[in-house]
Amino acid sequence: MTFTLGRSFFKSDTMVKAVELEKSYKLLNHGPTVLVSAAHGDQRNVMAAAWSMPLDFSPPKLCVVIESSSFTRQLVDAEGSFALNVPTRLLADTTLQVGHCTGSEIDKFAKFKIETFPASQIRAPLISGCVGWLECKVIREERNEKNYDLFIAEIVAAWADTRAFENGRWKKLTPDLQTLHYIAGGAFFLAADTLEIDV
Amino acid sequence: MTFTLGRSFFKSDTMVKAVELEKSYKLLNHGPTVLVSAAHGDQRNVMAAAWSMPLDFSPPKLCVVIESSSFTRQLVDAEGSFALNVPTRLLADTTLQVGHCTGSEIDKFAKFKIETFPASQIRAPLISGCVGWLECKVIREERNEKNYDLFIAEIVAAWADTRAFENGRWKKLTPDLQTLHYIAGGAFFLAADTLEIDV
Repeated sequence: MTFTLGRSFFKSDTMVKAVELEKSYKLLNHGPTVLVSAAHGDQRNVMAAAWSMPLDFSPPKLCVVIESSSFTRQLVDAEGSFALNVPTRLLADTTLQVGHCTGSEIDKFAKFKIETFPASQIRAPLISGCVGWLECKVIREERNEKNYDLFIAEIVAAWADTRAFENGRWKKLTPDLQTLHYIAGGAFFLAADTLEIDV
Repeated sequence: MTFTLGRSFFKSDTMVKAVELEKSYKLLNHGPTVLVSAAHGDQRNVMAAAWSMPLDFSPPKLCVVIESSSFTRQLVDAEGSFALNVPTRLLADTTLQVGHCTGSEIDKFAKFKIETFPASQIRAPLISGCVGWLECKVIREERNEKNYDLFIAEIVAAWADTRAFENGRWKKLTPDLQTLHYIAGGAFFLAADTLEIDV
């Protein structure tokens, strides 16, 4: 059950808070594998992407590669927006599963029991169980999209699970909340240990 | 002391081997923070970058953000090539240090005692102590460079320390060889633990 309360909301034991836009790049700065969600009309989809990165601080922008043959790409092209969702260890299975089939043939949300909640600025659903969410509006750069499947987008809203990220910064992550960093063949590195250097 | 032997070479206890170009994207796939090195004429420099990602498999390409005000940018603009170096925990200090000063004022290699070895295809020096190296030639995309400080490049050669990466794949990393994933304020996540899912 979800309660909306000002700019934050609670979902079971999770508290999701808005992330200041200027700090939203930090959700991607350490290089996690993400889930790309999109919707257009009554269609929606989700795919996995290891290839994304921040691009600018203010206004905040990011890059992501969305293959031209994917169903998500059709939705992003039509709608002009998408969300990046930062999954954790608990969603590792889901992250692999949605990367190994196409939404043009099945409803991935039903098949893999993926829960969602609404975004604030765009139509794409946000994926429950993630620890960070970036709502993005595409900045049309046709040459990049056509030649490289490369999308540039402005981050128009961002959210984080406060158990993992708060006050513009990642916390020490408990095992369940560790982000995924895809290697190959079903294996991920986990953002488990941290190293702090006096600067 | 370095011995050249066919397509691989040995440096003290380290064995560096060529990575097949089609698998070179895997050096970046898990989102490590990298060192960008560049050289032009008798000038060279190195900077840190958290914002890079693979862009294509074959021919292999990548993206990286190189700020217009940086000295590295001047060298990349002039030379049309650069290297991405994947540092480990042992180079965390160096990674922060080279990110906090400019090569237009100091020789970072001398100041921070950074050792290098020559690249095979480009002039940029490769940074010793890293576990992966990507030699890159810029694919000129002026609009991206001018508007977003975004560079697209083809990977023309790649190398890995076989203790960390071999046969196109990362190994379980011993503490000294764990890659760095920048958070903020001198803190990194480390690619320490791995998670393997049956696919």
